[in-house]
Amino acid sequence: MEKAGGIPTQRMEAFSDGVIAILMTVMVFDLKFTTTLTAENFRQEWMELLPKFLSYALSFLMVAVMWVNHHQLFHQIKHSSGKLLWLNLHLLFWMSLIPFGTHFVGGNPWMPAASSAYGLIFFLNALAFTLLRGHVGRQRLLHSFAPAHRQRFIQRKNRITLAIYAASALLPWVSVYLSFALFLLVPALYFVPEKITVPENKDNNP
Amino acid sequence: MEKAGGIPTQRMEAFSDGVIAILMTVMVFDLKFTTTLTAENFRQEWMELLPKFLSYALSFLMVAVMWVNHHQLFHQIKHSSGKLLWLNLHLLFWMSLIPFGTHFVGGNPWMPAASSAYGLIFFLNALAFTLLRGHVGRQRLLHSFAPAHRQRFIQRKNRITLAIYAASALLPWVSVYLSFALFLLVPALYFVPEKITVPENKDNNP
Amino acid sequence: MEKAGGIPTQRMEAFSDGVIAILMTVMVFDLKFTTTLTAENFRQEWMELLPKFLSYALSFLMVAVMWVNHHQLFHQIKHSSGKLLWLNLHLLFWMSLIPFGTHFVGGNPWMPAASSAYGLIFFLNALAFTLLRGHVGRQRLLHSFAPAHRQRFIQRKNRITLAIYAASALLPWVSVYLSFALFLLVPALYFVPEKITVPENKDNNP
Amino acid sequence: MEKAGGIPTQRMEAFSDGVIAILMTVMVFDLKFTTTLTAENFRQEWMELLPKFLSYALSFLMVAVMWVNHHQLFHQIKHSSGKLLWLNLHLLFWMSLIPFGTHFVGGNPWMPAASSAYGLIFFLNALAFTLLRGHVGRQRLLHSFAPAHRQRFIQRKNRITLAIYAASALLPWVSVYLSFALFLLVPALYFVPEKITVPENKDNNP
Repeated sequence: MEKAGGIPTQRMEAFSDGVIAILMTVMVFDLKFTTTLTAENFRQEWMELLPKFLSYALSFLMVAVMWVNHHQLFHQIKHSSGKLLWLNLHLLFWMSLIPFGTHFVGGNPWMPAASSAYGLIFFLNALAFTLLRGHVGRQRLLHSFAPAHRQRFIQRKNRITLAIYAASALLPWVSVYLSFALFLLVPALYFVPEKITVPENKDNNP
Repeated sequence: MEKAGGIPTQRMEAFSDGVIAILMTVMVFDLKFTTTLTAENFRQEWMELLPKFLSYALSFLMVAVMWVNHHQLFHQIKHSSGKLLWLNLHLLFWMSLIPFGTHFVGGNPWMPAASSAYGLIFFLNALAFTLLRGHVGRQRLLHSFAPAHRQRFIQRKNRITLAIYAASALLPWVSVYLSFALFLLVPALYFVPEKITVPENKDNNP
Repeated sequence: MEKAGGIPTQRMEAFSDGVIAILMTVMVFDLKFTTTLTAENFRQEWMELLPKFLSYALSFLMVAVMWVNHHQLFHQIKHSSGKLLWLNLHLLFWMSLIPFGTHFVGGNPWMPAASSAYGLIFFLNALAFTLLRGHVGRQRLLHSFAPAHRQRFIQRKNRITLAIYAASALLPWVSVYLSFALFLLVPALYFVPEKITVPENKDNNP
Repeated sequence: MEKAGGIPTQRMEAFSDGVIAILMTVMVFDLKFTTTLTAENFRQEWMELLPKFLSYALSFLMVAVMWVNHHQLFHQIKHSSGKLLWLNLHLLFWMSLIPFGTHFVGGNPWMPAASSAYGLIFFLNALAFTLLRGHVGRQRLLHSFAPAHRQRFIQRKNRITLAIYAASALLPWVSVYLSFALFLLVPALYFVPEKITVPENKDNNP
């Protein structure tokens, strides 16, 4: 079963999981007190660490949203292809820049360039995910249990996400707070994972 | 078998393993002599490294306990769900803060705030694990071979763990030694893994 | 099925994926602004970061090419052997030096020694891959669906790659730009993955 | 098949692979030129990097030997158990100290304490592996295709390894070169992996 027919997606999923797990985890290693702490410098050090903590938590949440979507999408894909491998690696490349953006905005929370870079990285991630999903849809790589109207709903959600990220990359030059608000909007929008597996679709058949 | 019915837990387990393996391992990279060693500074450097070593060993043991419990729990889960994915990611978030706590307490062993933060992180981990287990129990996601009285025993053990961690987060302000003693109590309590698989339950049927 | 007959390749693939995922991802952690940014030093810092970004993107692309080839090759291998394990570990050793080369060339883009070391590391990687592929071919470890003329085509492509990398290790002493041009040639050559799975080979049978 | 009977070893193997892959790979991130290189300091920097390279290559080789042995042993294990989980985690703990030893000896190659610590860490690894193998043998967790006389041969080899590592931890106080020679002896001894799978044992049946 595993080595016949199309290339199974199993190894691509495992590899993606490895990359995503490392991205999620290693960001936390910047969360450190770098000097020997005393009663005097503790408050100061903590104030510098706080934005790093918040940017880490936000990035963890956004990567988690992406992983859940990746998990749900690949769960429905029948088999792999050369182009799918590359579209997935393309997505992983932009995901791998998330720690850079997180470190940048965590170390310079009030600098518009930092929030803008952070927003741009997530915009490129959302774009890579949209390309991947589009290819899967066009090539009919999905199992039949993913209904078409559900796919359209997800595509619309993706386009909204792209627009939000584009705005979050431009708005920091007006106010970084506007940008932060938008960053929180996407996880809120995506928090409920895309329910497109068999049991949940029963109600679609009237 | 894999792509029909409910979502299999396989990929969630593999992803969790990736995250936990990285957390366990990368903590060791703080264990380094940072300066060129000479006969004079060797003793001094070693004395600074020792608490880092001990905090690493303790964290490794506690993460190992958590991994074994995670392994035993997921071994019994029939299939995944959207909510289970998120409860697991929630647990992984708090686990990802363990290296921060380890570095904090290893670098500042006598500072009450460090032991308190370390205890608080493990309290939040235990809470996340309890939420996960509670959901699994309520949704009847377990295979039938997990007997109910065994589940109750584990829930009681979880509540004791929560109480110990809560105490370890508060006690350092009295004495950090009290807190350290509590940290050692939990691994001792959990060292014997939860035996809830088929063969071990045979004696439950009189 | 899994524990009978020859050793399955599954664990070797998973282990390789782990190593490659870490190599790909952790390189990004050198992409950091190391000082507190101000309006004055931002441009300067960014100019220092740019070659690191470019060398990271190039290394990511080349490791991705290697992973796709590894994936395609192992997909066709019937079972593992002691020698195959070691040839694969030999490949992983040279792959593990890629972050060193990336950091070297990213930090010193105009130093001929850096580009030369970078080229040499990829030459040794290509050599290790050729040894692995040669062993697989000689030991007839491939499934029958890999036609011989296709294997010969791939071997010829491998020899060209080796020659390009050898040139890229020697040419920086003339001009580092020549070397950079060659680095871009290999991904271009390999970008289309080797299509040697069942469905694609149907047209070979006239 | 997967969730019935004894606990399958699959997840324990995957988790071990994750930990070992990270250990092998992340050691390479100490291999860096830390200052901006000039024609003057290049030779000096390179001389400091060389022992780090050699200690990395040696550690990679020794971890690879351990991984191959781990792979071969677990390939033969029928099912997991609580005690096996903990003996494996115990082994992973000592493995996780290898990067510390590698960094120590790579940064201070002529310091007897460094070689001694390096030898001691590998002695403890070999001891943990022997404990794991002993448990597997006593509990009859192996498939029948592992012949008893082969097991005894391996146990003898393990005892020799333990003796060599014990010597390598003591000898640096006489001469670090003696210790280095012993470090090279073990990979040489173990390079041929333990051939205890079905096909190779055919000649045992006269």
